[in-house]
Amino acid sequence: MRDGWLVCSGCSHRIPFNAGAGQCSCGGVFLVGYDLERVKASWSVNPLKDRASTMWRYHELLPVDRPNEAVTLGEGWTPMIRIPEWEERLTLKRLWVKRDEQNPTGSFKARGFSVAVSLLKERGIEKVAVPSNGNAASALAAYAARGKLQSYVFVPMDCPGIIVEESIRYGAKTFRVDGLIHDAGKIIEEGKSSEGWVNVGTAKELGRLEGKKTMGLELAEQLSWEMPDVLLYPTGGGSGLIGIWKALGELKEMGMLQGELPRFVSVQEVGCTPVVDSFRSGAKKLVPYGDDTTSSPTGVRVPNPPAGDLILSILRETGGTAVAVTRDEILQAQAYMGYQGISSSPEGAVVFAGLLHLREAGEIRSGERVVLYNTAHALKYLEWDPPTSIPVIKNYKEYAERVNTEHRATFMNKNS
Amino acid sequence: MRDGWLVCSGCSHRIPFNAGAGQCSCGGVFLVGYDLERVKASWSVNPLKDRASTMWRYHELLPVDRPNEAVTLGEGWTPMIRIPEWEERLTLKRLWVKRDEQNPTGSFKARGFSVAVSLLKERGIEKVAVPSNGNAASALAAYAARGKLQSYVFVPMDCPGIIVEESIRYGAKTFRVDGLIHDAGKIIEEGKSSEGWVNVGTAKELGRLEGKKTMGLELAEQLSWEMPDVLLYPTGGGSGLIGIWKALGELKEMGMLQGELPRFVSVQEVGCTPVVDSFRSGAKKLVPYGDDTTSSPTGVRVPNPPAGDLILSILRETGGTAVAVTRDEILQAQAYMGYQGISSSPEGAVVFAGLLHLREAGEIRSGERVVLYNTAHALKYLEWDPPTSIPVIKNYKEYAERVNTEHRATFMNKNS
Ligand SMILES: Cc1ncc(COP(=O)(O)O)c(C=O)c1O
Ligand SMILES: Cc1ncc(COP(=O)(O)O)c(C=O)c1O
Ligand SMILES: [Zn+2]
Ligand SMILES: [Zn+2]
Repeated sequence: MRDGWLVCSGCSHRIPFNAGAGQCSCGGVFLVGYDLERVKASWSVNPLKDRASTMWRYHELLPVDRPNEAVTLGEGWTPMIRIPEWEERLTLKRLWVKRDEQNPTGSFKARGFSVAVSLLKERGIEKVAVPSNGNAASALAAYAARGKLQSYVFVPMDCPGIIVEESIRYGAKTFRVDGLIHDAGKIIEEGKSSEGWVNVGTAKELGRLEGKKTMGLELAEQLSWEMPDVLLYPTGGGSGLIGIWKALGELKEMGMLQGELPRFVSVQEVGCTPVVDSFRSGAKKLVPYGDDTTSSPTGVRVPNPPAGDLILSILRETGGTAVAVTRDEILQAQAYMGYQGISSSPEGAVVFAGLLHLREAGEIRSGERVVLYNTAHALKYLEWDPPTSIPVIKNYKEYAERVNTEHRATFMNKNS
Repeated sequence: MRDGWLVCSGCSHRIPFNAGAGQCSCGGVFLVGYDLERVKASWSVNPLKDRASTMWRYHELLPVDRPNEAVTLGEGWTPMIRIPEWEERLTLKRLWVKRDEQNPTGSFKARGFSVAVSLLKERGIEKVAVPSNGNAASALAAYAARGKLQSYVFVPMDCPGIIVEESIRYGAKTFRVDGLIHDAGKIIEEGKSSEGWVNVGTAKELGRLEGKKTMGLELAEQLSWEMPDVLLYPTGGGSGLIGIWKALGELKEMGMLQGELPRFVSVQEVGCTPVVDSFRSGAKKLVPYGDDTTSSPTGVRVPNPPAGDLILSILRETGGTAVAVTRDEILQAQAYMGYQGISSSPEGAVVFAGLLHLREAGEIRSGERVVLYNTAHALKYLEWDPPTSIPVIKNYKEYAERVNTEHRATFMNKNS
């Protein structure tokens, strides 16, 4: 990247751009700075609306030198759809879902790895490793395959089987770890010098955050450069939320967006709620949750998010909040989204459940404009279980005879 | 639809537009006709490039009266990506994959049902039923949910469990049938009057084909209105292939595309190859395969495609062909696509395997420009199987000690 730089989110220390930079010694993360005047000029010469329907339409705000050589699989520019039925039920002016499950590898993680792997390739790196709750593993695997790097992925033992399979199919050396995501991270840190791995875990590599930023850029463009009031994000390591915040900030500085940033809301699952607990206790520094997590194996189960302090400050600075939801509320929310025709991962359902909470509590108000991020496909979490509760029939006669007595639909079948 | 009509693909009989029309009495299917001059005028007043990034950008070529009220979940306008490595290996000028797995419900079936359900809703229909190998079931389920219709879906017993689950989650009344797709179809035909179902099976409902047509419209626009030389499609009921052919024909008639249509190629799996066998034997009428299929439970296992004669005539008219591939070749092709970072269902792999065949045989030539349709996500076909062959480790020491002896990667892991 020719004319960018890095600024520490903690101490504001500024250094020249360096794609290999780690976290700052103060514990803050380095964020990429751009010459925004120049970006703006470039957008007016070559308008966004004439560009590719991928996140690379924003290439001037991504830290690569040669966007034409980016490692891409067609990521980004995912649809946003409204849910009129729930707008009415919750008396919201607008309720949008950003369908980020419609990315390569079925999750928003594609965005970060498209940029990260592009940068690693520019630097000639050959072996990359990531600790992950699953979706980052399969996304790294796919982009590494596309870019001809070898990937090594480390996931907790209870990571959904399909996501593990997916990583293998993209050619990743795949390992299950008897522990949580930070235990996986430790393995990589310990092994990296002997194995020649570059660790592309959250906050270890700045391309990932920049890639996730495009979720915010797209949001703004798709809403015709008008900010929503509230934005709910399933928060694990936090770089999704930070990326969106950074994007909106850059657009504001460029004069593309007016007014206040939306209120940012972090939603987590009861049983691993470091952000919620720290936020609600008023802490300035994030207090890790510890290893005794009881929440489900999803992307929001991150006891000690590396950029936790920055997450807290974003929630506060934007007048947002953090909220915890139970597993049952998540299942219920997933069913609600299913009945709207939307394939929502547990993480997507987490924010829907969070919305119901906050609307109930009045923290999201009638008439507001709300955006939910659906970060992955439901498909990735399903169990292959030939559903024996579903009747097997040979002909219409059997249907007519048996359907009313025997058709016990599962908990997901609303009409039973 | 105000100014369209219907023409029979068999006997050219022309009737006024009627969204409820079934197949023609001659056995042909009714295809929707449009006032193409008018469409063209509308596209020049309101250029495509300024439109929504969904298939509804082509609303003038879709048979709905009020596109603003269409039942939409953000379908279409999926990416096309090149595979440079295989362009080189096969000495092709271009090899594109249309990533249609990046649709709502993870397959191209979303396109057909967005239009079909929109039409059914305009007509006030409340109960819809489909016989399906799986993806049509879950796509109908999603769009019916979105449009507030009740869906009934009937799939063969060996339909992948995840797709069955998916249908249930969208609220479909879901049934497994002890038989093949046409047995499922019979149940619906027999039951429809007592149950009040509208059958939206292949060739029963014209919105589905029109929706699938957008795969051809997008192809043309994404290739900057230049035809490729060859196009390979995984052929089951055939309406995908027919839709693409119809789209390119319409664009040609509008003067948007010049020259010859690409050669259309149908690919099927050994063990259920009615199109391949009929084509290769020179038959003019499709000869059904019979019930003794031995191929895998995928979307290309359709022994008696309803519009088979039209498929054959398209393959011949465009100078195309039909080819059968084995299950092993499909698995191999799926692995090849995985190593390119692409999530390919067996059906997407079917066409990759077909390409390898035809390139080997010289029927696709060096320097040609080829398009493959990847019609669904690999994810939908995976089995949840905590992969015991993958080592479980606690720390880097265990990794270092065990990885070289124990890490037996599965057949998909290229580096083992
Ligand atoms: C589907 C999904 N949603 C949300 C998250 C959390 O994202 P972040 O780590 O950026 O907070 C993850 C992370 O694994 C995820 O996989
Ligand atoms: C993934 C997939 N590909 C291809 C097909 C075949 O499409 P068509 O019936 O239009 O020939 C199907 C149909 O079920 C499918 O599900
Ligand atoms: Zn610092
Ligand atoms: Zn006819």
